[in-house]
Amino acid sequence: MIVEQYFEDYQVGAERRTFGRTITEADIVAHAGQTGDFFPHHMDAEWCAAQPFKQRIAHGTLVLSAGIGMTAQAINPRAMSYGYDRVRFIRPVFIGDTITVTTRISERRDHPKRTRHGIVVEQVTIANQRDETVLACEHLYLVERRETAA
Amino acid sequence: MIVEQYFEDYQVGAERRTFGRTITEADIVAHAGQTGDFFPHHMDAEWCAAQPFKQRIAHGTLVLSAGIGMTAQAINPRAMSYGYDRVRFIRPVFIGDTITVTTRISERRDHPKRTRHGIVVEQVTIANQRDETVLACEHLYLVERRETAA
Amino acid sequence: MIVEQYFEDYQVGAERRTFGRTITEADIVAHAGQTGDFFPHHMDAEWCAAQPFKQRIAHGTLVLSAGIGMTAQAINPRAMSYGYDRVRFIRPVFIGDTITVTTRISERRDHPKRTRHGIVVEQVTIANQRDETVLACEHLYLVERRETAA
Amino acid sequence: MIVEQYFEDYQVGAERRTFGRTITEADIVAHAGQTGDFFPHHMDAEWCAAQPFKQRIAHGTLVLSAGIGMTAQAINPRAMSYGYDRVRFIRPVFIGDTITVTTRISERRDHPKRTRHGIVVEQVTIANQRDETVLACEHLYLVERRETAA
Amino acid sequence: MIVEQYFEDYQVGAERRTFGRTITEADIVAHAGQTGDFFPHHMDAEWCAAQPFKQRIAHGTLVLSAGIGMTAQAINPRAMSYGYDRVRFIRPVFIGDTITVTTRISERRDHPKRTRHGIVVEQVTIANQRDETVLACEHLYLVERRETAA
Amino acid sequence: MIVEQYFEDYQVGAERRTFGRTITEADIVAHAGQTGDFFPHHMDAEWCAAQPFKQRIAHGTLVLSAGIGMTAQAINPRAMSYGYDRVRFIRPVFIGDTITVTTRISERRDHPKRTRHGIVVEQVTIANQRDETVLACEHLYLVERRETAA
Repeated sequence: MIVEQYFEDYQVGAERRTFGRTITEADIVAHAGQTGDFFPHHMDAEWCAAQPFKQRIAHGTLVLSAGIGMTAQAINPRAMSYGYDRVRFIRPVFIGDTITVTTRISERRDHPKRTRHGIVVEQVTIANQRDETVLACEHLYLVERRETAA
Repeated sequence: MIVEQYFEDYQVGAERRTFGRTITEADIVAHAGQTGDFFPHHMDAEWCAAQPFKQRIAHGTLVLSAGIGMTAQAINPRAMSYGYDRVRFIRPVFIGDTITVTTRISERRDHPKRTRHGIVVEQVTIANQRDETVLACEHLYLVERRETAA
Repeated sequence: MIVEQYFEDYQVGAERRTFGRTITEADIVAHAGQTGDFFPHHMDAEWCAAQPFKQRIAHGTLVLSAGIGMTAQAINPRAMSYGYDRVRFIRPVFIGDTITVTTRISERRDHPKRTRHGIVVEQVTIANQRDETVLACEHLYLVERRETAA
Repeated sequence: MIVEQYFEDYQVGAERRTFGRTITEADIVAHAGQTGDFFPHHMDAEWCAAQPFKQRIAHGTLVLSAGIGMTAQAINPRAMSYGYDRVRFIRPVFIGDTITVTTRISERRDHPKRTRHGIVVEQVTIANQRDETVLACEHLYLVERRETAA
Repeated sequence: MIVEQYFEDYQVGAERRTFGRTITEADIVAHAGQTGDFFPHHMDAEWCAAQPFKQRIAHGTLVLSAGIGMTAQAINPRAMSYGYDRVRFIRPVFIGDTITVTTRISERRDHPKRTRHGIVVEQVTIANQRDETVLACEHLYLVERRETAA
Repeated sequence: MIVEQYFEDYQVGAERRTFGRTITEADIVAHAGQTGDFFPHHMDAEWCAAQPFKQRIAHGTLVLSAGIGMTAQAINPRAMSYGYDRVRFIRPVFIGDTITVTTRISERRDHPKRTRHGIVVEQVTIANQRDETVLACEHLYLVERRETAA
């Protein structure tokens, strides 16, 4: 789905909410395999049983990647992903937890150097099945202006 | 490998450098499969041929996840990953590019609320085979203090 | 995305068209791994070089699964997938081919036994980058009627 | 294993039966990843708990692909897969169900246009561990005739 | 396929030969992901270009696993895999090489302790598309005797 | 991590011990997919329930590959993997078992033909969470001599 939106078209406060996705043992194994991070926090159920969290936890980059992927629903040919600010791992995600993502356009601001693009900030909140936030971040998009600042 | 380090043990300026890793078509396909992001930027060679970049590009979260995974070499039982700041996608990563990661401890600072832990900031720089930076970010660790601030 | 549609709401002739997806060697390797079909047609480049097609070809079930997956864009809580008719493998798909899917509602018909549901038929056409049809099928949906036939 | 069979060699009524295969959560996650179909029916255990089926179900294309793959045991150099007719998803397949496939040559018929090949129809029945049919279809093969119809 | 064979039924000198399988970049990426071995020999095309082999090589355990898997064609309910002797990595396997496996029953011998089973030795030779041996090993099976040694 | 060691530098008796890794259903599914070995011992929970072991077991090559991968921690530019001797599958590994690997340099010996290299033998022992050995083997490395035997 293509939804063309210029910088000026983004409404601060606009919200989206995704379907849920259950994070499985298979996801953690696959993410270890994709990243090479086989730390016992993610891979060793015996070791984890003796830790405060008691069980294996998802990699932070898995939760971030899965959550951001869940928000990738419409292509805006005027925008590109610019980066993230304030990514925070707030609670662990365990095997079997189901995450849902809500996003909210929180800010539109000038780019420090570019005049033909602006920065749109989307606040991303990933919650588990108990509505507890597990990860929060700001997703920054570089978006073309409809009219360049003269 | 376990390397126990308290907050006070981190030396600002300490650097690490990883081996390289070639980002393959298989990595992009696997990351689409893990995240559900099948946007044509990553999956449609025909569409990409008509874009400014001319070819498929790796997902931002793939480059971040792979790069952070490459730095996961030693476990510090006194530290945990707290989040990322200022993640910036500086250049695209194409199929066949080889990334290498350098890290540098850039700051030690107090946690705004916790007195028994501090924040250690590791500047992460991911470069391609031409030594061009493709992604930069700050990796924040929450680290136990050897002596709690009284 | 949820789009609620009853049987009566489907318009014969309505069309959709997906983005493209390049079928990669990694997809074929993954599909062999998922199905256990390691036939040389898909896995042995040397053997294939001596066959009429000269190169490895994608599994029929891979092309079907990928193509159907590309059409899974909106959830209709009133419909469920019922099956396929007339699935035909018309041309081979080679590594590097890019497929695109067009669908067209071709028929609405009664279910032979159920009175509260009808059958909606979606003609699915999967084409490669030269606009040659590689696979065609009819996707049948069992859809609730707004008013049951009395 | 190569078993050369011409059109005339297929015996209507001939049956085969495969080993079983347990469909796992990992299979569903992998199939979502291969197809891009992350619908909550397959991926969201919380949402499913509120549906009539109560739990995640395997994608129809996963059951079809796995089942067809299980029948791919011998290569016949005189035959190629031509398509499927009457694919029907009869019962859901849940995580942990074990499927077994039985096939039966049900028909040999002329091809509407080609005189040097005929169509062999193999009835495919996929059952779960309670011997309930979960999927049925007809697998069509295009097979060389030993003697072309003059 | 089930082929029941007692210890006495194995014929020294009996040979089998598999189809071929092309080892792909996707296989190496998947094997790194399954084993956690991301050594640059397998993953870093730039580093490899400066090594004697000039290019990435398959993991030894990938070649062994793939080759042994290719020989897993018939189930013998009287036998179980006991281990391997003299596994030797004779030549590297590069991306795109096609391996074929030949096996030959080379020996039947008593088990040092068990009287109801014997050891059957299958010499396994994995060759590339130039018929050069890349890996050789002896696969040992523990097989029930038809009559126990009295 | 690079640790340069010549043949003469290896100390017989030197030991290493890895972290643990839980072998999951996802690992077995992935290994079947990588090797094409879909034998019911690994894939069919129903069939296994009627066998002496009662449940699915990991492929021998999975346990070997995972265990060897766990020992791949430091690169020695003077050594290369030469093969394995006396690989023995001592106990089955079930889904959920956690394996840990201990290695011990057991021997340094001349190579039968090469004078500039010697063979270093590393005894590899893979144990489960009950400290029972599940697999043992000798990993042979071909290592450059600091001084060639004159």
